[in-house]
Amino acid sequence: MKEVAIIGYGQTKFGELWDKSFRDVIVESGAKAILDAGIEGNDIGAMYIGNMSGGLFVGQEHISSLIADYTGFTPIPCTRVEAACASGSLAVRSAYLAVASGAHEVVLAGGVEKMTDVADATSAIATAADQEWESFFGATFPSLYAMMAKRYMYEYGMTIEELSMWSVIAHDNASKNPYAQFPFKTTLEGVINASPVADPLTLMHCSPVSDGGSALILCDAEKATDYAHKDDIIYIKSSTQASDTIALHSRESMTTLKAAKVASEQAYKMANITPEKIDVAEVHDCFAVNGIILLEDLGFCKKGEGRIAVGQEEKIRIDYNNFVTVNPSGGLKAAGHALGATGIRQVGEIYWQLKQDKNCKDRQVNIENGYGITANVGGTGGTVCTHILSDKK
Amino acid sequence: MKEVAIIGYGQTKFGELWDKSFRDVIVESGAKAILDAGIEGNDIGAMYIGNMSGGLFVGQEHISSLIADYTGFTPIPCTRVEAACASGSLAVRSAYLAVASGAHEVVLAGGVEKMTDVADATSAIATAADQEWESFFGATFPSLYAMMAKRYMYEYGMTIEELSMWSVIAHDNASKNPYAQFPFKTTLEGVINASPVADPLTLMHCSPVSDGGSALILCDAEKATDYAHKDDIIYIKSSTQASDTIALHSRESMTTLKAAKVASEQAYKMANITPEKIDVAEVHDCFAVNGIILLEDLGFCKKGEGRIAVGQEEKIRIDYNNFVTVNPSGGLKAAGHALGATGIRQVGEIYWQLKQDKNCKDRQVNIENGYGITANVGGTGGTVCTHILSDKK
Repeated sequence: MKEVAIIGYGQTKFGELWDKSFRDVIVESGAKAILDAGIEGNDIGAMYIGNMSGGLFVGQEHISSLIADYTGFTPIPCTRVEAACASGSLAVRSAYLAVASGAHEVVLAGGVEKMTDVADATSAIATAADQEWESFFGATFPSLYAMMAKRYMYEYGMTIEELSMWSVIAHDNASKNPYAQFPFKTTLEGVINASPVADPLTLMHCSPVSDGGSALILCDAEKATDYAHKDDIIYIKSSTQASDTIALHSRESMTTLKAAKVASEQAYKMANITPEKIDVAEVHDCFAVNGIILLEDLGFCKKGEGRIAVGQEEKIRIDYNNFVTVNPSGGLKAAGHALGATGIRQVGEIYWQLKQDKNCKDRQVNIENGYGITANVGGTGGTVCTHILSDKK
Repeated sequence: MKEVAIIGYGQTKFGELWDKSFRDVIVESGAKAILDAGIEGNDIGAMYIGNMSGGLFVGQEHISSLIADYTGFTPIPCTRVEAACASGSLAVRSAYLAVASGAHEVVLAGGVEKMTDVADATSAIATAADQEWESFFGATFPSLYAMMAKRYMYEYGMTIEELSMWSVIAHDNASKNPYAQFPFKTTLEGVINASPVADPLTLMHCSPVSDGGSALILCDAEKATDYAHKDDIIYIKSSTQASDTIALHSRESMTTLKAAKVASEQAYKMANITPEKIDVAEVHDCFAVNGIILLEDLGFCKKGEGRIAVGQEEKIRIDYNNFVTVNPSGGLKAAGHALGATGIRQVGEIYWQLKQDKNCKDRQVNIENGYGITANVGGTGGTVCTHILSDKK
């Protein structure tokens, strides 16, 4: 397999983008990524787009053709990939394999979701759960993750304050991110006393309904300096993906994402590092409890300790020999969660952080070892995709 | 890039499968493919699934996790790909790239659609057209393809009899295919006098609404004999994909699928052959006119001559130095069109034909040069994906 690098990233602001259509959002983020990489549109050999449900949100499937059309990149191949909220990471992984195979030298991996055009986004999102055994009986994602939070409280004695600290820090981080949907700070009381959604989760434990687009430019690592300045090249050291049962009730445990453990173990092995080497992580906190569980499943702390690891410093940091800084962007909770765009945005944030890009401004984390990881989750953990990036080849 | 082979194929019957759910259909076809290849489930390293709209047809997105779950193959990675009716071929191409890259040795490429569970399949299918400029104003696929047929009649003087001959032969071929949805014969009068759908198209010029699943097993060609008998190995000589504008009105021509020309020219070049070498083709005749146009765009005959090329022999055959036999399965028209499963079924038919499998029975075509091609179309040509297979490495 060829080595693969990232040479550019762009995104729209995440939020309620009333003045932009589905196609505007993806074109804007794609154009920004191309400008950031400093390449020509003609350099791009193929595109992979993560999108969860254009069909249910905007009445548009076949978005691969739409995007090739509106970016003006016809006749290059464009493919949509979908695994619910992990769709974006799967687009990165598909692009990675297309470059690694030698089929294409430069590939755009994009993600897009326009969720605010429908009245009932929660029902559309519920199609990511098991239709016959969960959604049909009224289960929604807030209710499924609430059960996970309840169970985590039961098994490990997590308090509502420990759970809520995640959101406090997420908003603190987002306050330094100009692309974040909710760049305001909050307090423990503000989180705990917010409107209840599904006990124990309040509105402030839940990621929002978001519009947004994001795009990365991937390139054959051997050729990367032909296209980009060496300081703008970050390497993909591993791209791994695992699956689990779609229904929460079929799992061995409700407080572990087995697919996250499998994917991240493979990722560390492929990158030939241990979790201690990670400087920065972007993890999938669609609900606060999921962020805490992922800290454990990614190997940053022991089972049951994610709840107390949060907030040891000003950001979501974990003392694990060295520090790993988690979700400097504000995460899904506060930066926003435009489903198909989220996985790309996570990788984009790590790309910026590792190359210490000017876009990071006040939220730039300390880069010591030069490694970062992302963990993007579909459903309640039916799909997990992880990427390890490094500033070293 | 590694060379890639196909070592097994399985499918359900296409049709109104009232007694089978979405998950039953894909599990059945996957199990048949695995049995056909003679491998173990544990041999499979990843899965790619083509599906156009689980969200709109059965309220289920995130089918990658569902399928990994119900096949019992967790935790291997499973990815859904979508490009409307070309979704199946894109699953083949994604699996091809995953094997070619060296990431996985054996990969399952599957396709599934359950269309008969909704009252208005045509509206769901219309999301494959341009939502803002076609579907929103009431355009459906029968109406869009009817315009293409009208234009083809205007430009090349095609008669309704020439158009209808496609369907007569398609049904004749399907009568020899036990998996076909409509294995009955018909006549020119039967086609022309069927219920009008969108002038000049009658019901008998249109492919049906179908349920169905199909699955292929792809394998590193160097390792294929470790898994399968040498007589059961067929090689993928090219896998190419191209895009065009999503809206029909934006095209340079309504009677050429530019993406089919681009993809097939690349395919012949990659396989290092000319169209004359093709023994058998499966082309995307969602409407009869599209089958005729593809004969031309794949290089089997000149522009405007597809209409008279049809029916020179008992099957849809083209006299082009040698004969190419087209759609021995009965094509989408008569074998059925379970959207996401169609592209896989086309490749599966060519796999069977080239290895002269017992499943071909009375519809086995004469294999002289050992090459076959598929052309799978998304929308009105916004995506086209082609595969050339050969019985020689």
